[in-house]
Amino acid sequence: MKLKVKEINFETGNAKDIVLNINDAQELGQKAGERVFVKNMKSKSLEEKYWVAIIQIDYLGTIVEPGEIGVFRNMLREKKELKNETIVSVKSADPPDSFKFIQKKIKGLKLSSEEINGIISDAVSGSLSRIDLAAFITAVSINGMDNEEMTALTLSETRSGEIFYFGMDVYDKHSTGGVPGNKVSLIIVPIVAAVGLTIPKSSTRAITSPSGTADSMEVLAPVAFTPEELNKIVAEQNACIIWGGALETAPADNILIEIERPLHMDPIGLMIPSILTKKLSLGVKKLVLDIPVGEGTKFATPIKGKQFAYLFKEIAANVGIEAECALTLAHQPIGHAVGPALEAKEALTLLRDYSVGPNSLIEKSTDLAGMLLEMSGKAQKGMGQSMAKDILHSGKAYEKMKKIIGAQGGDPNITPEEIKLGPHVKEFSSPKEGYIVEVNNSIINQIAKTAGCPSSKTSGVEIIKKQGAKIKEGEIVFKIYSHSESKLRKAEKVYNATGGPIRLGGMVIERI
Amino acid sequence: MKLKVKEINFETGNAKDIVLNINDAQELGQKAGERVFVKNMKSKSLEEKYWVAIIQIDYLGTIVEPGEIGVFRNMLREKKELKNETIVSVKSADPPDSFKFIQKKIKGLKLSSEEINGIISDAVSGSLSRIDLAAFITAVSINGMDNEEMTALTLSETRSGEIFYFGMDVYDKHSTGGVPGNKVSLIIVPIVAAVGLTIPKSSTRAITSPSGTADSMEVLAPVAFTPEELNKIVAEQNACIIWGGALETAPADNILIEIERPLHMDPIGLMIPSILTKKLSLGVKKLVLDIPVGEGTKFATPIKGKQFAYLFKEIAANVGIEAECALTLAHQPIGHAVGPALEAKEALTLLRDYSVGPNSLIEKSTDLAGMLLEMSGKAQKGMGQSMAKDILHSGKAYEKMKKIIGAQGGDPNITPEEIKLGPHVKEFSSPKEGYIVEVNNSIINQIAKTAGCPSSKTSGVEIIKKQGAKIKEGEIVFKIYSHSESKLRKAEKVYNATGGPIRLGGMVIERI
Repeated sequence: MKLKVKEINFETGNAKDIVLNINDAQELGQKAGERVFVKNMKSKSLEEKYWVAIIQIDYLGTIVEPGEIGVFRNMLREKKELKNETIVSVKSADPPDSFKFIQKKIKGLKLSSEEINGIISDAVSGSLSRIDLAAFITAVSINGMDNEEMTALTLSETRSGEIFYFGMDVYDKHSTGGVPGNKVSLIIVPIVAAVGLTIPKSSTRAITSPSGTADSMEVLAPVAFTPEELNKIVAEQNACIIWGGALETAPADNILIEIERPLHMDPIGLMIPSILTKKLSLGVKKLVLDIPVGEGTKFATPIKGKQFAYLFKEIAANVGIEAECALTLAHQPIGHAVGPALEAKEALTLLRDYSVGPNSLIEKSTDLAGMLLEMSGKAQKGMGQSMAKDILHSGKAYEKMKKIIGAQGGDPNITPEEIKLGPHVKEFSSPKEGYIVEVNNSIINQIAKTAGCPSSKTSGVEIIKKQGAKIKEGEIVFKIYSHSESKLRKAEKVYNATGGPIRLGGMVIERI
Repeated sequence: MKLKVKEINFETGNAKDIVLNINDAQELGQKAGERVFVKNMKSKSLEEKYWVAIIQIDYLGTIVEPGEIGVFRNMLREKKELKNETIVSVKSADPPDSFKFIQKKIKGLKLSSEEINGIISDAVSGSLSRIDLAAFITAVSINGMDNEEMTALTLSETRSGEIFYFGMDVYDKHSTGGVPGNKVSLIIVPIVAAVGLTIPKSSTRAITSPSGTADSMEVLAPVAFTPEELNKIVAEQNACIIWGGALETAPADNILIEIERPLHMDPIGLMIPSILTKKLSLGVKKLVLDIPVGEGTKFATPIKGKQFAYLFKEIAANVGIEAECALTLAHQPIGHAVGPALEAKEALTLLRDYSVGPNSLIEKSTDLAGMLLEMSGKAQKGMGQSMAKDILHSGKAYEKMKKIIGAQGGDPNITPEEIKLGPHVKEFSSPKEGYIVEVNNSIINQIAKTAGCPSSKTSGVEIIKKQGAKIKEGEIVFKIYSHSESKLRKAEKVYNATGGPIRLGGMVIERI
């Protein structure tokens, strides 16, 4: 069938979508969501072949008339010879083989690495629709993936994009998330880099939390770089703290995440390949994985975290990454600050002066950094944490952080005092005397996000006193910062409605 | 957040989709596929409330700039006050409760009827995205639905649309499909209606087959009617043979089918409610279900067909429908004709003159019609088929069919000879003598669809001789009809490449 291109002023979720009038679709015998082959008959390229497109149908004829094919902007950008009135040849197409592999996973069968490669390459090319991928992700959530499948998926996702090489020994640290204020990467990276280890830390922006490492780092320096720029930064400083999203690594992983996220699905069978793919793409060889456990994290109990850790180490080893895992506490925030600017400030303050703490941030950061130092052989077994503390205490980590900030285009001499907060601030004081028995993470997240995090960098919260602390009546326990007065008021309302994140115990608690 | 409407010249698969610029989506803290509440601030309607919309994101700012919200044509039709530049208020929204019920099914848990109602009403309103529904369908495919869930789903889907009332006793016949040439409804409906029973037969157009009952009937009379027209036809003739798609019954079922189809999924948990919903919507009380079994059908073995039959009867009883099921042979086509016009012609020829057969069509039609006559009490147990044969033989069924054709706006005096075929025809003769040992349904379907079925009504195939027949060398065994010479040539190619659907056995077969 010959059809005339009609440009549509819209970008679709799948770059292979096209629109047919219902009459032409019927003539081709294809329904919405099924496929056609399309070819530009007048292409000047000798390479021009039939490509697969996924059908959307115009039932009313208001977008494309019979004889027309609607082509979206994303495809017009890719197929530059297509313009209004271009004549293309269209014929019906069967689903790709990878569609059958998805059916196989739905039936609970194991996929071979060739089959997984097929699914991944068709996901990237757009030959599998978003609905097909939603079915795949759901099937993996229910039927799982075994070690071989996760290994194959990791390798396949990694091959779908750019792969960096920063040398033989490349280190990294990652967290499975779920604790507010977890700015440890801003301390770990400069400690590890200060002794000469290569640590190209790429991280995400916040997805469901008030701040991701990339959001906090962006307060100090730019975080979005091209592959060339990244190579230059790491060659100079053997380290970086950047946003992974700007690189062209593992597009397949991003495509799956774009569908997992609205489905609120994060099955282990996809989570492990997703973490390892990002690391493999940056050439990481040795990795410390921080696994917060408890309420609000991905692992409700230490047992579940431990099972995950063993599985993770195994798949990591299969793809050539030596991984060590640390189960960590997640009952209250790390440090006192939550929100991009507040976290950057807390980290920079500690780097500059070890003695100001906070202890929870020092302990967690140096524990994890110490593990990397031991893995590298720089520290003897059991001596990693004290070496990390020495580096932090000596100011060498601070010096390294300044250089990283400078290399990424930030002001290396920025002081914590220069970091802008708020400007709208509200303090909350304790109505009575007592001991803090609970600091509720989920209320903290809710307040911080209501105040404007993460899109407003200067918004956030400060938890002045934490679990176990004795406080007096009228003492300030909590502060909210916001860029907007109305958002500050809304965040206050959340504080009042929930009673705030700080729970006091009275004498009973004290006597125990 | 206040945003300015920008009209987008496109219709989306989900009527609740809108487009936000990435900056505004970040400010709202929402990602693609997540939700916002939207409200027209200047609406003149006192009823105006926030409605839910699902976010598509413009990452490049080429469609909507910051401060704009892209609104598609389908929503512009529904919300008539929305125009370019209209100011709307937008705020972030959580997924609806029904989203959690889908997660529950993914976890393998049973859904309550309230939960199923929630999913169905949000599917119809568009508050659940197509990706959410793909996850639901996949979860049902894997984890199944029990009797109570299927019962609740049937009732819920039925309530989602128009429900007809044609009296206390309403009969119907349905087939689970998979046999080519299954034009039995064109014989059964007039037989049953001739004795005064009410049988408002709604059927589908072909989905994967060369012709559906609605496609064949459309050769004789229009099949698309409004509810008012349908009421008039059935009041007059106590029967009809129409296309169900034009009625506004059970939109929820159609929404699920639109996603099941490209996924090639048809799980029992959705199939049974889908069949029963269509029947309940037309007020059917007594139903005969034709269950073809064997290769190419939904039930590979009689055992599987039987299990399905028992389950179907049970769910039907739960929703107030008395169902009888018939497992039927599916090893070769029913009758000799496949394709809309060829099937209409074969049916009309038999109605006019019982003696011309074909036998397979007489036997299957009168067997199923006889079951309905027995269920109604018009025939005694065991006497239904002979009564049905009498009605067919007497010409009363033919007279009734003429009236139905007339009531639907066709020419009641149309003769089989006036039905247009082809016009391009190719005959195939046997290269040798022998007995027909196989007539391959899947090759027949492939050839008929290549020739132009079902969108071309005059295209199709004729199987001159069937299984068991002795044929001579040079005898014509198969004919292809097509509206297009080039499609005829393509269909010929399929015949030659596959060796055709007719397989001969030699002497060995004869001797058995």
